[in-house]
Amino acid sequence: VSISPKVAVVMGSESDREVMEEAARILTEFGVPHEMRVISAHRTPEKAHKFGTNAAERGLQVIIAGAGKAAHFAGVLASLTTIPVIGVPMTTPDLGGLDSLLSTVQMPAGIPVATTAIGTAGARNAALLSVAILALSDEELAAKLRGYRARLREQAHEADLRVRGEIQ
Amino acid sequence: VSISPKVAVVMGSESDREVMEEAARILTEFGVPHEMRVISAHRTPEKAHKFGTNAAERGLQVIIAGAGKAAHFAGVLASLTTIPVIGVPMTTPDLGGLDSLLSTVQMPAGIPVATTAIGTAGARNAALLSVAILALSDEELAAKLRGYRARLREQAHEADLRVRGEIQ
Amino acid sequence: VSISPKVAVVMGSESDREVMEEAARILTEFGVPHEMRVISAHRTPEKAHKFGTNAAERGLQVIIAGAGKAAHFAGVLASLTTIPVIGVPMTTPDLGGLDSLLSTVQMPAGIPVATTAIGTAGARNAALLSVAILALSDEELAAKLRGYRARLREQAHEADLRVRGEIQ
Amino acid sequence: VSISPKVAVVMGSESDREVMEEAARILTEFGVPHEMRVISAHRTPEKAHKFGTNAAERGLQVIIAGAGKAAHFAGVLASLTTIPVIGVPMTTPDLGGLDSLLSTVQMPAGIPVATTAIGTAGARNAALLSVAILALSDEELAAKLRGYRARLREQAHEADLRVRGEIQ
Amino acid sequence: VSISPKVAVVMGSESDREVMEEAARILTEFGVPHEMRVISAHRTPEKAHKFGTNAAERGLQVIIAGAGKAAHFAGVLASLTTIPVIGVPMTTPDLGGLDSLLSTVQMPAGIPVATTAIGTAGARNAALLSVAILALSDEELAAKLRGYRARLREQAHEADLRVRGEIQ
Amino acid sequence: VSISPKVAVVMGSESDREVMEEAARILTEFGVPHEMRVISAHRTPEKAHKFGTNAAERGLQVIIAGAGKAAHFAGVLASLTTIPVIGVPMTTPDLGGLDSLLSTVQMPAGIPVATTAIGTAGARNAALLSVAILALSDEELAAKLRGYRARLREQAHEADLRVRGEIQ
Amino acid sequence: VSISPKVAVVMGSESDREVMEEAARILTEFGVPHEMRVISAHRTPEKAHKFGTNAAERGLQVIIAGAGKAAHFAGVLASLTTIPVIGVPMTTPDLGGLDSLLSTVQMPAGIPVATTAIGTAGARNAALLSVAILALSDEELAAKLRGYRARLREQAHEADLRVRGEIQ
Amino acid sequence: VSISPKVAVVMGSESDREVMEEAARILTEFGVPHEMRVISAHRTPEKAHKFGTNAAERGLQVIIAGAGKAAHFAGVLASLTTIPVIGVPMTTPDLGGLDSLLSTVQMPAGIPVATTAIGTAGARNAALLSVAILALSDEELAAKLRGYRARLREQAHEADLRVRGEIQ
Repeated sequence: VSISPKVAVVMGSESDREVMEEAARILTEFGVPHEMRVISAHRTPEKAHKFGTNAAERGLQVIIAGAGKAAHFAGVLASLTTIPVIGVPMTTPDLGGLDSLLSTVQMPAGIPVATTAIGTAGARNAALLSVAILALSDEELAAKLRGYRARLREQAHEADLRVRGEIQ
Repeated sequence: VSISPKVAVVMGSESDREVMEEAARILTEFGVPHEMRVISAHRTPEKAHKFGTNAAERGLQVIIAGAGKAAHFAGVLASLTTIPVIGVPMTTPDLGGLDSLLSTVQMPAGIPVATTAIGTAGARNAALLSVAILALSDEELAAKLRGYRARLREQAHEADLRVRGEIQ
Repeated sequence: VSISPKVAVVMGSESDREVMEEAARILTEFGVPHEMRVISAHRTPEKAHKFGTNAAERGLQVIIAGAGKAAHFAGVLASLTTIPVIGVPMTTPDLGGLDSLLSTVQMPAGIPVATTAIGTAGARNAALLSVAILALSDEELAAKLRGYRARLREQAHEADLRVRGEIQ
Repeated sequence: VSISPKVAVVMGSESDREVMEEAARILTEFGVPHEMRVISAHRTPEKAHKFGTNAAERGLQVIIAGAGKAAHFAGVLASLTTIPVIGVPMTTPDLGGLDSLLSTVQMPAGIPVATTAIGTAGARNAALLSVAILALSDEELAAKLRGYRARLREQAHEADLRVRGEIQ
Repeated sequence: VSISPKVAVVMGSESDREVMEEAARILTEFGVPHEMRVISAHRTPEKAHKFGTNAAERGLQVIIAGAGKAAHFAGVLASLTTIPVIGVPMTTPDLGGLDSLLSTVQMPAGIPVATTAIGTAGARNAALLSVAILALSDEELAAKLRGYRARLREQAHEADLRVRGEIQ
Repeated sequence: VSISPKVAVVMGSESDREVMEEAARILTEFGVPHEMRVISAHRTPEKAHKFGTNAAERGLQVIIAGAGKAAHFAGVLASLTTIPVIGVPMTTPDLGGLDSLLSTVQMPAGIPVATTAIGTAGARNAALLSVAILALSDEELAAKLRGYRARLREQAHEADLRVRGEIQ
Repeated sequence: VSISPKVAVVMGSESDREVMEEAARILTEFGVPHEMRVISAHRTPEKAHKFGTNAAERGLQVIIAGAGKAAHFAGVLASLTTIPVIGVPMTTPDLGGLDSLLSTVQMPAGIPVATTAIGTAGARNAALLSVAILALSDEELAAKLRGYRARLREQAHEADLRVRGEIQ
Repeated sequence: VSISPKVAVVMGSESDREVMEEAARILTEFGVPHEMRVISAHRTPEKAHKFGTNAAERGLQVIIAGAGKAAHFAGVLASLTTIPVIGVPMTTPDLGGLDSLLSTVQMPAGIPVATTAIGTAGARNAALLSVAILALSDEELAAKLRGYRARLREQAHEADLRVRGEIQ
């Protein structure tokens, strides 16, 4: 899947892998070529710098960056590229992810980070947001996205029937 | 500017106008056709429903939705369309916008809202994020965005010189 | 119990079922006809729209809406009907339900949502609040509610005796 | 307006008067007979006790209780009556009303308080919620409430036209 | 121990028993006659009213009141008596006890509640604060309290030796 | 008033003076001999150490300690004496006093600080709590405290009459 | 003062200048050669990268970095150098600086940022902490620091005398 | 390792030992002579006083102080010495360590505490910050610190390879 990727799913630490694979799983489901990377704004600043600077010319169209605590990663990448950067705040054991969320979303004017929810829901939604962005110029992908929404609707409808006791 | 808009800047209440005009001002600066609207998820649900449902076929490519307090607006629109929806949480006088932020960003898996910072910085960044999204298929816009970043850099450089006492 | 329901217990996701069944259990205990539904403001917006719009003419008198995270569900329904809507914020694993609470309670002026406590206590109290509302025009129900309070009192009295060591 | 009141608008301190008069103003607009009172759970506990205990037999159908900080007032009244009690958390200068909100909404199972937003929006919505409750058995009031919603819609529509530059 | 009690250890719910027994255990250790009670401000308001009103004439000198969530109990008792009331905020599963803390400590001017820490530490400290208050007119108790502090010191000294590896 | 004081009103910084004078004013009103001091746990640790260590033998019966931000003052004094120490958390411009509150109230088991509300209300209540403690062995003071409560009640009653429009 | 600086006082935005000059003022008072800079982790990432990478070889011994909101600046610099980096979280108008604080202090293991208080107090303390660090190998500076503490003590003593009414 | 220590790792309670040993482990790894101590600002104030006062003349160059809840320990030590004091806020079960963090970091101007992250990450970073401070006058230590950073980089690089599927 990682040849000529359009989306990069990057995480600050390998411990974020399980959460961020939710994003990769959805991208695979939509057939979006992507790569998964561990790049730490703090431990590998040179690599982060190079990754951000080269992202556009490598053909990446969206970067999804997951990070926790003082989560600088998405913002650092966003400062180095003009392609859209989506930030996923990780849950943290002490403050529940409020630290990750505020560190990701409260970007100063000039350098946006598109922030999604804390944790797994955020990782999934970051993938779906990437798809929505790519779908603006890819009608086939747009159709898949509408199909995905239809399946969500269908699942919710079945849940409704189960709760009403009409199916099991 | 509002003929054949690509971006809609929508607010839940006219009281959000001053903040959301920061987004419109940047879109104008980039020459992105856009429209400004007041549509309340709560007071005009039918209109919100219609607006969200028709957004894609009207040719909109990005929706920027600003709302405060129990800020449902961005999420409601996101559930009705598959184009990217950017949420701007408004500052609130009692809880400082923490309520708006959590109501906008903590979307359940399936329906993403790309959330930016609370208040004015968020409105500006929502516009810049729209530009970044549109620039993926518009090289001229991408160049303008790189130019914008260069100006930011230049301004920061001048501020540095001022603080160092080398210019006034 | 679900024929000609007076109260709807609606949840945004099947994962809220265990909590929301606490509400249904109390309504059953009071003999209030009710229905349980899964309707998601985000995944099934059309259904939510129709449900809210038709609630009054279907004879519903109170809607209890449970939702978590960016909990828009109660507010969305409240914008579509004029019957009382009670919101129950779900506990969330990262922010403890503070996100659900603020998304439910901080409604802008014009569209009220009667909010109860986070989680199970809130679900139970939402049912009791529905009963209190219906009891305004149903003296038999009012008597049952006074009886319920008397039992609470009795249970607390027995707990007092146990702690004092007078009973076991 | 205060003869044979159906709704009581009660505040814990005279300093809450300006906010709570927003509730009274709306009740007057709807023609709902109501009374305004200052009764403090802390400074006049006997009066609060008597007020809560007698509320139902005095013909009150809803109590709106506004209080700030460690806001016990709504909960105390709710423990003394079975008619619906609506709590309005006051804004506080230090914690912004988060203290008032949590003290009002986090009621233990058994004794519900229908909580609205912090401050003025909450006071207005408490009145509208009372109207919605009374309207369940008063079709004329229900019609007024639908009319009120229609006016909200109309105002939002005009705001939309102003922001679009079509009217001033 | 409960004959002619000087201190009452009162809790809002039997579920607070384990925590509040920490207070009772310390009072027993100091030989302070005390009673343990379950009295709910919400479920047994009459009993709470009577308990608070009669506390002084029953010879109680301090009331320790533990409660959780919208923790009104200490404040309600404090409004009914002029003897010192100590509030212990219970830990809560969703908000960690922040709700209990703010509901207990943020009392309006006029009716003080002496608040201790959330949970077990708070229950123990409430007992020690009671002892400190009683010790003002009981030199024997004051000496015991100084002895207690000396033991704390000694235990901390031993912990220091253990960590330094000088004892095990 | 400061000869042979029974209560010390101590603040960490002269900037807390206006708030803490609310405590002194009430002590004066009750005729309780007291002293006002500026002693900083951080800037004058020796003085704080001496003050705490000597408090009991100087005849002090209660210490009221006001401090803001990382408010260590009350806890430091409490560790040096066995007389009751009451902590008043100061309002802070950035975090509203949440920092002061948590730094004062969250004392570890063993060393209690009786904490009151943030800011002015807390300062007043700290004085009233001191009076309640001293009144346990001073019936005249107890009578004054009951009188104070009666006046609070009377004032609240007059506020009620004003709001009801029966007096101005 | 800026020739051969030992300490750099760097801010993310010129709007932080007034606060950060408090740090510079104290360094001047102690005769510590320093420089003031505006370098934005987000707007001038290259400059930040170069600044951090070269800091040690330029002879800097401590970096003080002030930044607000999603305050990545101190962490970014800390990742590029091994000299001590002190972070000063700026007050923010919406969240009071909680966002800046968490973004600065919650650094992952491996890359420390020495964080001081939010706002002006933090800026001053960052300078004093720099002095304390430099004083470890500069006895003259250590003596000045002890002198500074003595003056703080003296000022607090005078404040005490003023509050006691012994001086004005 | 504890003979002639340069760094003291001090904790307020033996229950903090496991976390604080992370700091000691790193100091050992760097060959920095250090001591581990349990000294409670609250339970052993005399010892804390003596420890802080004598720290410099005992040859200590940095103090690392870990404490939880109303975490006064770092601030108390900082007020007694002019050598750098690093505060590590402990995680707390109820408020997640927000109480410890604010009690440690929000020091008033004049007495700095260099604060690191909540919990284990903070303990490790406190040790690394000590090393960075000592390395300013110890080139061998500086080289070790650069080596440590290189190993962090290497580990992050390997994690990247694992996630990319190039190694296992």
